[in-house]
Amino acid sequence: MARTFVHPSAKDFSIDGVLYALSDPIRRGIVLKLLDCDKGGMSCVKSCDELSPSTISFHHKILRESGIIRSEKVGVEVISSVREDELNKRFPGLLRTILQSHKK
Amino acid sequence: MARTFVHPSAKDFSIDGVLYALSDPIRRGIVLKLLDCDKGGMSCVKSCDELSPSTISFHHKILRESGIIRSEKVGVEVISSVREDELNKRFPGLLRTILQSHKK
Repeated sequence: MARTFVHPSAKDFSIDGVLYALSDPIRRGIVLKLLDCDKGGMSCVKSCDELSPSTISFHHKILRESGIIRSEKVGVEVISSVREDELNKRFPGLLRTILQSHKK
Repeated sequence: MARTFVHPSAKDFSIDGVLYALSDPIRRGIVLKLLDCDKGGMSCVKSCDELSPSTISFHHKILRESGIIRSEKVGVEVISSVREDELNKRFPGLLRTILQSHKK
């Protein structure tokens, strides 16, 4: 039985929220790891094994509330994925440009 | 007689600092206004007439410390300009992509 999280609709994404969420290197790392998982058509369950569950939850909440990721609770696990297409429609090229800068 | 501010060198720009600085709509507005002034080869002295001097000073400090703008005190005025070329070399396309999203 899945429990759902609350997510903003794409029209409610704000550039303030997206930039703030991505101004933290841990959160950019989570997004990069999720995107990497998504390549195989899967969502990533454990996007940051090295962090405590409460820290993971905190960062995922900020990413979720800004519209960057979508999470779904399935049993005891939270499955998250990046809302890349929706972000790109709203803010073209922004996510990848930021993530590219993260690697520099 | 000009008094100088302290500015980070381009190699010390951090993506965290740049994204945080630009996550505020007032600061993005200041940058846009300065870029607009720069079109004519001039720096803009009063980049946000509607704000109090202390608020202007606060936002300029954050922009300056992140490397986004350069300020110079000349007499009683502060002349600021955007360090666009340096930012672009360090984080290609980042500034304009963010400012483009600001307008949406």
